[in-house]
Formats: sequence, structure tokens, C-alpha cells
Amino acid sequence: MIENKTDRASCSDFEKIYIKGALHDIHVGMRKVHLTDTVTIEDGEKVFSKNDAVVVYDTGGPFTDPSVEIDLKKGIPRLREEWILKRGNVEQLPDISSEYGKMRMADESLDHLRFEHIKLPYRAKKGRKISQMYYAQQGVITAEMEYVAIRENMNNEALGIKSHITPEFVRQQVAAGHAIIPANINHPEAEPMVIGRDFLVKLNTNIGNSALSSGIEEEVEKAVWSCRWGGDTLMDLSTGNHIHETREWIIRNCPVPVGTVPIYQALEKVNGDIEALTWEIYKDTLIEQCEQGVDYFTIHAGLLKAHVPLAMKRLTGIVSRGGSIMSRWMQIHDAENFLYTHFDEVCEILAAYDVAVSLGDGLRPGSIHDANDAAQFAELDTLGILTKKAWSHHVQVIIEGPGHVPLHLIKENMERQISSCYGAPFYTLGPLTIDIAPGYDHITSAIGAAHIAWMGTAMICYVTPKEHLGLPNKEDVRNGIIAYKIAAHAADLAKGHPGADVRDNALSKARFEFRWKDQFNLSLDPERALEYYKAGSKSDEEYCTMCGPNFCAMRLSQSVKKGCE
Amino acid sequence: MIENKTDRASCSDFEKIYIKGALHDIHVGMRKVHLTDTVTIEDGEKVFSKNDAVVVYDTGGPFTDPSVEIDLKKGIPRLREEWILKRGNVEQLPDISSEYGKMRMADESLDHLRFEHIKLPYRAKKGRKISQMYYAQQGVITAEMEYVAIRENMNNEALGIKSHITPEFVRQQVAAGHAIIPANINHPEAEPMVIGRDFLVKLNTNIGNSALSSGIEEEVEKAVWSCRWGGDTLMDLSTGNHIHETREWIIRNCPVPVGTVPIYQALEKVNGDIEALTWEIYKDTLIEQCEQGVDYFTIHAGLLKAHVPLAMKRLTGIVSRGGSIMSRWMQIHDAENFLYTHFDEVCEILAAYDVAVSLGDGLRPGSIHDANDAAQFAELDTLGILTKKAWSHHVQVIIEGPGHVPLHLIKENMERQISSCYGAPFYTLGPLTIDIAPGYDHITSAIGAAHIAWMGTAMICYVTPKEHLGLPNKEDVRNGIIAYKIAAHAADLAKGHPGADVRDNALSKARFEFRWKDQFNLSLDPERALEYYKAGSKSDEEYCTMCGPNFCAMRLSQSVKKGCE
Repeated sequence: MIENKTDRASCSDFEKIYIKGALHDIHVGMRKVHLTDTVTIEDGEKVFSKNDAVVVYDTGGPFTDPSVEIDLKKGIPRLREEWILKRGNVEQLPDISSEYGKMRMADESLDHLRFEHIKLPYRAKKGRKISQMYYAQQGVITAEMEYVAIRENMNNEALGIKSHITPEFVRQQVAAGHAIIPANINHPEAEPMVIGRDFLVKLNTNIGNSALSSGIEEEVEKAVWSCRWGGDTLMDLSTGNHIHETREWIIRNCPVPVGTVPIYQALEKVNGDIEALTWEIYKDTLIEQCEQGVDYFTIHAGLLKAHVPLAMKRLTGIVSRGGSIMSRWMQIHDAENFLYTHFDEVCEILAAYDVAVSLGDGLRPGSIHDANDAAQFAELDTLGILTKKAWSHHVQVIIEGPGHVPLHLIKENMERQISSCYGAPFYTLGPLTIDIAPGYDHITSAIGAAHIAWMGTAMICYVTPKEHLGLPNKEDVRNGIIAYKIAAHAADLAKGHPGADVRDNALSKARFEFRWKDQFNLSLDPERALEYYKAGSKSDEEYCTMCGPNFCAMRLSQSVKKGCE
Repeated sequence: MIENKTDRASCSDFEKIYIKGALHDIHVGMRKVHLTDTVTIEDGEKVFSKNDAVVVYDTGGPFTDPSVEIDLKKGIPRLREEWILKRGNVEQLPDISSEYGKMRMADESLDHLRFEHIKLPYRAKKGRKISQMYYAQQGVITAEMEYVAIRENMNNEALGIKSHITPEFVRQQVAAGHAIIPANINHPEAEPMVIGRDFLVKLNTNIGNSALSSGIEEEVEKAVWSCRWGGDTLMDLSTGNHIHETREWIIRNCPVPVGTVPIYQALEKVNGDIEALTWEIYKDTLIEQCEQGVDYFTIHAGLLKAHVPLAMKRLTGIVSRGGSIMSRWMQIHDAENFLYTHFDEVCEILAAYDVAVSLGDGLRPGSIHDANDAAQFAELDTLGILTKKAWSHHVQVIIEGPGHVPLHLIKENMERQISSCYGAPFYTLGPLTIDIAPGYDHITSAIGAAHIAWMGTAMICYVTPKEHLGLPNKEDVRNGIIAYKIAAHAADLAKGHPGADVRDNALSKARFEFRWKDQFNLSLDPERALEYYKAGSKSDEEYCTMCGPNFCAMRLSQSVKKGCE
């Protein structure tokens, strides 16, 4: 049923390179953009000068390596399996542990949908601790830590740019909880990446079908598509049929960490009847997903019963799906949030697979009017308490944040998060800085995302143009990702990430020298740039239609420069 | 030749209203969005509660009033003519004054291109001063000042929102040079608008053909299109053939102030030969355009000979067209910038028509690398000197700013501009916050524009997705404008402009109550929002495809609210 097609176009202008580790036998994939020579005329002769190639961060995994044969039906290579096994702390289980997983596996009517090559899951051996945080606290620099240190530096060694990001620095940050490396032992296909305020700003994309649309094939295609354009992590927010099977296909083919919101599936298991939700169903869902390889879970454990009335004073109430489900559950049962009361058990489960927790902001504001209110900050304080609890289990933690926030209230969000949550990485949805532009919320929110990431947010969750209106299609995903790559990069530059401006400078130089091809290859979306250029221009001239030949400032500027010499 | 078509769609869901002045016989056009009732169920009965209509700022002029018949061949109504004549300080000339204008008028081969109903120009009577700044300094609240005060407040009186923006406040701001009302007496078609940091952030759009593309009809259509989507002013940057004739068509049909860069046309007059440029040709061009009705001129008078070597140290040299032309001219002639040396004469001409000067930043940075460098700030200091000089002629002044600036360097731009230029309004192009996203520079720059406008920039010049690649088409103009309406509104909210959040709150309430039609009508681009919604949904249901019925947080949140009652 699942067609074996992957869109691997546009890789041709890059060289896929692998940088070797010094501490571990690892090979970190990146894309190298080779540049053409600068051509000047001196004494009537053409003089050629070389331009350094620029290495760019690559989230495409094997999909951007033309030498790797991809078969979606088999899944992509299991890069980290050997590293995990070598540490000797995990064991392969004789069977999957979740009741639901077993039931789905036994259901022959699902055979045609099922990923064929499912392996039995790994889990920590009894009494062993296996999270990246635990290793870091023991002073161990794992292969994953070295991998991300190399990945963050890209051009820095080659260009002699000083960087504070060393494998030891990564270890320290992960040990302190100020950065995480989401890396479920059952998702060895994912390339390690780091989320923390002292690293490159990361971006998450959301995909997933709803009851009303799209199927497995489309979701797998979107996952690959997301990685191709630069998504650093991927949340599968499916709420329709076949969530379990869809997820398996996605994880087996996904080179970036995958996150989910388990309450969605738990609710599907009780046919949408919130009253029927129980800790037991939720727990089984956690185990099911841990063993499939989900790298981080959004868990709305910080939304307490006492917070709900605060949110009822709002203009737009509760706009988090998970938050509204848990609020309704607490109301129906007149009981405290079971995710809060069972949080230690949650952590024990997550610790056994090194799944990170993304503490959900069920009370994020859904409008400018509701930004920074009592409900939002009451929950944030609770997330701080849960952070400490998760850390006591060596579970890696990130904290989710808003939402809708006007520019002048963004800084307070960041400052409060740092102090309430002890420096755990912040992971925000936007925020949208205005409410009046449905259809353009990738832009209203990219403005907020750039700002909050500059202030210290470690990962920003993209918003597509379809936000508030419908499910994104592939083109929406592309537009959402590029808007957020822009926001993340704007923040990286503003934060002074070592070497962040290498690509900008190379592109600007190419632009000034009319090296069009280099300009396109260095851009976040070479195809779009080329398409727009071609729409107006006929050839590789030293001007474009924007100004025409007589009014090209850069052309004139070059003649001024010659005049100065 | 010019077809009489205007795209006046989407006006149907608005009521065009006119608010009367108290001091003057003026009628300020706005759009009123009527909202449907909120429907709740109480004791099994439907209960309807009214929602206040929301008034929105309208740049569409007569084009958004279905009762006005538009004939592009005749031009739109001359709204301000009576106000201007009533003040008794201007006279109609017996003939146009510029040599070039006369020559074009006499050229029969242009008859088929020419706007038919050209009126003879007005000019200040000898010895009289007529600029809005001069009137303001004399304590006069002009009709224009009252008009903009009403326009800035929209919903405030009806909703009882306190506002500092009164006609007297406008007068004070204009008198001090902290705000301008660009209002050439020869462009009475334009509705008055104000540019200043204590007012709503305005946005400028650039249109204009280059030698390589587009004709008159297309440019007029783009002008109307720009006003329809929300452009507050319009710069005609044409550099191709028939600049003079194109401009006449645009101005006669443009309900917003029009700006130009006269050096472009001056250069066309000498066939692109920079060496042949003279003050005399430029001066004749100024007069020609003053008499056509251009409301403000970008003049690169602050780029001095001594600054040019500073710019040669840059990665991307000089990227302003006007700046590169003047630099080359100074180099060829080994002479000081004639716009600087003749600046008093420039001001005398402008003062006679109340044309504002937009002091050009010929040395704005063209890349992240070049931001905030010595060249840029040396020119800015010179713009401060020229500001004082222009003010001594009662000429209204705005100051142009960058360009390409990373987020962390934006604030310094704003602070330096305020101190160097004595609080004259700042008018920036973006700035773009990264260099690596050609094809998406409306977004890279909307991020910077929102930030700098929040810091105090009064007007932001839009950037379209085609920036650096080619000339924008209509769809690019729309996308550029909406991105900048977003940036401007984000800044208005952050600055706490009185009543700025009325529309956001109304839209958010509509969203929470599933009043889809209201949500669309209140949005910056109702058509786009509706199009995206329709792509996914079948009906006016209480959910969209994004989450589906079971996972709609807002629907659940409403049931939680009911549960709380």
C-alpha cells in the first residue's frame, strides 16, 4: 500500500560529507556547498580567485546522500544501534510490552498497513540507567554528545573560528539539564541533535492526520519532506485512524527525533470519550510509543485542577488540545490531573528508553488578550516542580511555551521560564504576535519566534499558513519550515552563535559578484530563489529585472570600487 | 490604451463609513466590519448577544466605496483641493514650469499614453509658506491634521478608549518635526495620513517598472492594488520609458501619498550616463514632479564624498541605487554631492508645493556583514544636519534607514537615528535580519521591521518575496503588503497604540465562538483566510480540519466553561 517514493531532488548541487569523530567511531553528515570562483578583470585579463566551500547543517539524513539507497519499506539505516548496544546497558525484549501494541500486532486486518520489518524493542536492563543525562552526569561523553558537538560547528574548524561548543561542553550542558539530546534507544535511525539555549536554535514541525483527512503514505511523505527542508525534530500529532501503524512507518524512516502527544492516542482508544480516560490506558500508550521509538512526549502534567478556573476568565479559554482534554477530565471526575499524580511512574517508564519529556503548556494563551495571564504562569511554575522531579529520574526535560504573545510581553515569558524551570530548554509555539492575520500565521509567529529564540528559546515549533484554518499540505509545510529556519537563523546571528554568519557572508559575497548559482545554492530554498529569478531574467547577466542594467547598485558600486583603486 | 479596470472585489463585506470632523468640514473614510451575534444555548433555548462592529483603517480611498464610480481616465475625486484653496496661499500657474514637462506635453507621439485631464499645477504664492509644518508652527490645525487625528482613532470614541491622539497633538507633533503629513498641493486626491512614532506604524510599497518590464497599465493597476491591501504610501520607482506619463496616471488615481526618487528620472534624461548628470537637470526634474503631485522625494543628499571610501571596505559595497549613482558621480567629477551643495535650493522648491523630503540612506548596509558600520553612521550624522536645514525651510522630513541588520544591532540604529536626526520620523527598508533566504525576504525583513517599528520607526518600506531576484508581480505585492501589515500591527500592539487590540480581540472572540465569517472579515486578508479554510472544510462546523471534531480544543474549552458555571 505504501508507495516507495521519496522526493530527493535538489541534492545534486551539494556534496554530502561526513566528518569523523575523535572520541568515537562516528561520521557526522553535512552538506557541502561548493562555490564558483570570483572573476575579476586585471589589466584586461580574467583573474580567478577561489571561494571557500560552505558547509551547512543537514537534517536530511540518508535522504540527502545520493549514495544511499532508500527503501521506505525497510526503513533507513539504524545509525545509533551499535553505539547503544556497545554501552551494554540495554536488552532486547522477547515481546513488545504494551497491551495495545500486542493487540494491533495480532490484528490481521492491519497486515496490509503494517510496516514489515518491525524489530523487537530495547529497554534498559533492570537497575541500569541509560539516559544521555545520566551518562553526562557520570562524566561520560557519549557518541551522541560528540556527534552534536561536531554538528553544531560546521565550518568552524576549517575556518579557524573559535567555538565554545566542544563534546565536553555538550556533556556539561546535558548533565545540568540545560540541553537535551532526544534519543530513544528504539529510534536508532535518528541522527543525534541537541536542544539548548547555547546551541543553534532548532525547529520542530508538526505533521499528522486528523479524523478528517490524509493517510499513512501522505504522512510519511510529509515527514521526509520536513527533514528535507530543515525540520530538526518532527511531532506526529495524528488523531485519526491507524495512529499506531502510521507512527511505525514514520519512525522507521525518520532521521530526526520524533515527538508525540500520547494523550491523543489514549483518547482515540476510548473513542473520544474523555470520561473513560484512565491512567492505565495512558500508561499502556506510553509504553507502546516508547517501544516504537518516540523520542519525546508532550505531557500536560502541569495543568492542575486549581488552574482551570483561572483559564475560564479568558477571551479564548484553553486552546491546547491536551490541555482542554485534561481540564475536561478533571472537571468530570472532580479529581487532580492523573498525569500529575502519576508523574513519577511516567518518569520511570521514560527513563527505561531514554525518552525525553516535553512538559506541555496546556494553558498557553490562544490570543493576544490572554498572553502572560495568571493561568499561564501558574502552570509554568508547576512545570518547574515537575522539571526537578523528572531530573531526579535522569529524564531529559524541555518546557513548552506559548502561543499568542505581543512583542513587548515576550521577554517576560523567557525570563520567567528560565527562573521557574531552572534553565531547562524552552520550546515555544511561535509565539504569534498578532491575531488578525489568519492565512499568514507562519509570518505573525516567525516574528515572535525570532524574538523569543534570540532571548533564549532553544527550539521553536513551526506554524504553517494554514494555522487556525485547516491541515497543512506539503507546500504549507515547506513555507512553515522556511519561515522558521529564518526565525531560527535570525536568532542564531543575534546570539552570536560561532560561525553562524559564514553562510550569510558567503551568500552576500556571491550576490555582490553576481554569482547567481552560488547565491541560490547557499540559500535556504534554492529552488524557490531560482524559480523567482528565472521568472524575470533571461540569462546569467550582471543584473536582474528588479533594477535593470542601468540602475543596478551593486554593478555601479563595483565600478566605484575600481575607481577608488 | 489604459484600460479602465479596477479590482474592487471583497468590499462587499464591509460598510464604508465617513466620520465627520468637528473643526473642519471633512469626512474621514473608514471600513466598518459588522459582526454576527454570539449564539449560546441557555435552558435549551438559543440566546443571541450582539457583538460591536469593528472599524478598520482604510487606505483604499474611493476604491473601497461602492457608491463612488471610478473612471481611471478621469482620476479619482480631488478631496483636498477645496481645503488647499480655502487657505488662500496658493495660486494656479498659467503653465507647467519644468522644461521637461513642457517638452513631454508638446510631444504628440505621447498623446496616446497621456492622462487626458491634466490640470495646471498649484504653487505657493510668492512669499507665502504653505507646508503642514509651517501651519502647525503657526498654531493652525489644518483640515489635514484633524483628518489624521480622526483616522488614527478608529474605534476609540465609540468604545470609550482614551487616546492621546487629538488634532492638537497632531499639530504639535508636526510642528516639532516629529511627524509629517505628506500632502503635495498638487495631489489633492490623496487622503491625509500621518507618519510619526507616536502614531500607527505606516507601510510604504514600492512599485514601478524597470527598463526590462511592465507598462503603464500594469503599474496603475499595482498602485490601486497596493492601496486595496493596505499600503499607506506608494513609491513609484520606475526607471524605464515613459516615467513621466506613468507617474501622472498613478498620481491621478492614487488615494495615498506618492513618493519618488527623482535621481532615477534625471539619470534617464541623460540616457544613463552618470557623468552627464547635472544639478540643472535634477532641479528641472524636481519641479516637474512637484507639479505632477509627488508627495515626497527620496534625496540622497547626505552621502558625502568623504563617505565613499568607507563603503569600499564593505562586503557588499553600496546597494542603494541612488547612493551608487551619486557616489559614481562624485568620483567621476571629483566633486562634492550636488544634492548636498544645492540642498537649500532643493528645500526652496519643495516648500513651494509642500513636498516632504525623505533623506535617503545611500549607504545603507546591503548585508548582515556591513550593518552598523562607519559608512552608514557617517551618512546618518549628515542626514541630521540636513534635517535642521530642511526644517529651517519648513520642509517636512523623514529619514531613511536600513537595510540588512541582524536583530541585536537594530536597537542601535533606532537610538542613533533619534539622536542624530532630532526626532524626525524614521523610515526603514525592512531591515532584513538574515541574508540566506532569497525568495522569502518579505519574511526575513518583516521580522526586522516589526522589531524596529516597535523601537520607534514610523514607517516601514515593504520588501516582496522577489527582493534580490526580480520585479514583483501583483501577488508578490499582496504578499509583501500583508507581511508588512503584520509587522506594523505587531509594533502597534507592542507600543500600546490606543485601541490597537480592538480588532485582535474581536477576531479572537469570533474564532473562539466559531463565527468563521466574522473571523475572515476581521482579518488582514479575508480572501486568503477563506480560501484556506474552504480547502479543508465542508461546512460552517464548530471545528476545522486542523483538529477535527473530537480534538478541537476551543470546543472542549467551551464545555469546560459550561461545566464551571
